[in-house]
Amino acid sequence: MQTSQVISKKRDKKRLSKEEIEYFVSGYTKGTIPDYQASALLMAIFLNGMDAEETFDLTSSMMRSGKIVDLSSIPGAKVDKHSTGGVGDKVSLILAPLIAACGVTVPMISGRGLGHTGGTLDKLESIPGFKTNLPLKKFVRNLSDIGVCMIGQTEEVAPADRKIYALRDVTGTVNSIPLIASSIMSKKLAEGADALVFDVKVGNGALIQKEDEVILLAKNLIQIAKKFKRKALALITDMNEPLGEAVGNSIEVIEAIQALKGKAPEDLTKVTFALGIYMLILGKKAKNFSVIDRSASGGKEAKEKLDEAIKSGKALDKFKQMVKRQGGNPKVVDDYRLLPWAKYKITVESGQTGYVKSINTLKIGLSAQKLGAGRERLDSKIDPGVGFLIKKKVGDRIKKGENLAVVFSNNLKKGKLAKKEIREAYQISKRRTKRLKKILYLVDEKGIKRWND
Amino acid sequence: MQTSQVISKKRDKKRLSKEEIEYFVSGYTKGTIPDYQASALLMAIFLNGMDAEETFDLTSSMMRSGKIVDLSSIPGAKVDKHSTGGVGDKVSLILAPLIAACGVTVPMISGRGLGHTGGTLDKLESIPGFKTNLPLKKFVRNLSDIGVCMIGQTEEVAPADRKIYALRDVTGTVNSIPLIASSIMSKKLAEGADALVFDVKVGNGALIQKEDEVILLAKNLIQIAKKFKRKALALITDMNEPLGEAVGNSIEVIEAIQALKGKAPEDLTKVTFALGIYMLILGKKAKNFSVIDRSASGGKEAKEKLDEAIKSGKALDKFKQMVKRQGGNPKVVDDYRLLPWAKYKITVESGQTGYVKSINTLKIGLSAQKLGAGRERLDSKIDPGVGFLIKKKVGDRIKKGENLAVVFSNNLKKGKLAKKEIREAYQISKRRTKRLKKILYLVDEKGIKRWND
Repeated sequence: MQTSQVISKKRDKKRLSKEEIEYFVSGYTKGTIPDYQASALLMAIFLNGMDAEETFDLTSSMMRSGKIVDLSSIPGAKVDKHSTGGVGDKVSLILAPLIAACGVTVPMISGRGLGHTGGTLDKLESIPGFKTNLPLKKFVRNLSDIGVCMIGQTEEVAPADRKIYALRDVTGTVNSIPLIASSIMSKKLAEGADALVFDVKVGNGALIQKEDEVILLAKNLIQIAKKFKRKALALITDMNEPLGEAVGNSIEVIEAIQALKGKAPEDLTKVTFALGIYMLILGKKAKNFSVIDRSASGGKEAKEKLDEAIKSGKALDKFKQMVKRQGGNPKVVDDYRLLPWAKYKITVESGQTGYVKSINTLKIGLSAQKLGAGRERLDSKIDPGVGFLIKKKVGDRIKKGENLAVVFSNNLKKGKLAKKEIREAYQISKRRTKRLKKILYLVDEKGIKRWND
Repeated sequence: MQTSQVISKKRDKKRLSKEEIEYFVSGYTKGTIPDYQASALLMAIFLNGMDAEETFDLTSSMMRSGKIVDLSSIPGAKVDKHSTGGVGDKVSLILAPLIAACGVTVPMISGRGLGHTGGTLDKLESIPGFKTNLPLKKFVRNLSDIGVCMIGQTEEVAPADRKIYALRDVTGTVNSIPLIASSIMSKKLAEGADALVFDVKVGNGALIQKEDEVILLAKNLIQIAKKFKRKALALITDMNEPLGEAVGNSIEVIEAIQALKGKAPEDLTKVTFALGIYMLILGKKAKNFSVIDRSASGGKEAKEKLDEAIKSGKALDKFKQMVKRQGGNPKVVDDYRLLPWAKYKITVESGQTGYVKSINTLKIGLSAQKLGAGRERLDSKIDPGVGFLIKKKVGDRIKKGENLAVVFSNNLKKGKLAKKEIREAYQISKRRTKRLKKILYLVDEKGIKRWND
């Protein structure tokens, strides 16, 4: 097979065969296909697309490029949750211990911050000592012992994805649905979960902003999962404002711990619980239920289990166990001063009175990134203590001089720039505005349904 | 500027600014932009195109990436001819000395064989001792002394194009009009010619097969030339059968020498003279004339000059001078045995009686390439003695058992494969067929005109 012919085929809008896709993935992973041919093919895929079968074949080849974790020795269902990424999205930090506390094993392989969106691994690593680079053996042992483990993509898991992902990041080929879907699924299928719940973000702070594309991605993910005989469903949730208040790393860990103590902002609780209910249902700890009449059956049962795990302190305890197991200091749960804090605290006052009409969430995310909460280059170092508290959300009333947000910074100049940028991100209207609906759709094998709050 | 943002812009079908194009070309030439980002951008350009201004900026940046030859010290007009490449296209080998013999300086920087098409440099190098890698100083001296020099693209000339070209060849991004036009023009503008005549090939043996795309390329070339204040015109000529009889390297040199002796096949003479007439007109050695009534004025004058240069032996003499100046053995002109010859001569007989309906010229070219006349990889070595003589052309009557072609090979097995492939390339019809029109259109600044033979 000739690489340039495979490239030309996709360039000419033709289907790639299973063999051609396998040739590309294995050749690129082994290094017999150079970066420059891979990137030309990725751009051709970006612009000309891939059909369901090609996406499946790509996922399969990427998954098989590394080790596939076998969790069959652990009894019960193994359920994972994956978010496509947003600003202030600390849901994984809450859900993993919460669901494990309810008796469902949660094997979670997460990612780092990408562009303006935060990363679960970066957040976890702001806990002193916390290790996310455990070998797979340890991953399986932790899951077997305490039912939860959160690690990064090791070199053993889907190495093809690691390599392709890094290349996409620097060649303008990130936001392609078949490439995103195969990247997510190759990792998720390799980690050993039986069932998957996806949080697919939409809105001005999401990686993909258009609703029709986001729905297509959700459908793709579920379709691939089905082909691999995994149960899966997706919630399409709003990212037109940060989720919860905290944006950063240690600051988001604190908000997650607060949530495990039952003290989360309303929007964060809503999204976390909706995802959690489905994780329990897929994990066979609650009966299935219809979306139309959610309160009637399994939904209520699942919600009660989540409430109970929080009220009893079991969820928080599971978090502590996980932190300890992964080398971190579990005392952070009771003493936030053990986490990194920034030197300066700068308040961001509103310049006018009115109602929050919109928040440019991409701008908020990019501002946090610039402040040091994210990476500008692959080799940049994260400053774990910096970040924002977003005090006002869309629909909130605000008076001139009242705080919109708080900036935590280790550099006064950078902090002031962030203050300016946050102010610019807010649009204030004289007229009353409506709060945003946080959960928009449920997508499962049967199709898409509008979510009724 | 961020490279990935430049890539994303073109990916999203937006125009690239002059600064962005310059950033890419100079960054890639210097090596600060890696191959994998360049190839992603090239694929985006391939699929989303470039407008006239972008193509001009790309050409300009590529031209300025190296030295620009100054031929102003040489009196008179400097005119070059460029072909987009075909099978059996040895016209440059004839025209360069012929036009120089008529008093017009011909500075010619040529290319190597590409895919199934032959390359002027490879053909010239089949002459024992002939050097095509002269430094620019020597190039200018030869032009000043004898009015003609044929070299390859040195490292000094448009290094950006060399690098981009090599990358395009292996990433499926060759056949893009803005990329082809800028590649051709960056070299041609750097070599110091005042005027350019293009031979843009169309048909089943051309690099671009579709007529509308070929016309667009011709218009692009002329548009760019105009922006750089160079006079230019293009003939669109047929490549639905090899040009002349010889396909290969030394075998094409022999046919070119025969042409300089006035003994060329009719189709080869027709194309060579049409291009030559325009070179003399642009070189101010003949009056301009209207295409509609070609015989009336300058066309006749130019044609007489070409005839005279051949009849008098001046053209052949110029060829000898050029060969000598460039290190080759000029005696090849009188003794073809001094050129490389293949071991085996295999005749290709027709399996049926009838008329030649079509010749798959791409197949002929690929077959010659496989035989060793072209390169399968960038580092392949050419076998200069191998090739074909194509004895029957479209419209010719052929009897069963009569020769369609002759194969010259150094390997019996390969030779037999070529024989089989040549036979397959011919379509023979019972009914009478028409000869092909060799020259289809003239394209100049004013537009496109159908050519009347």
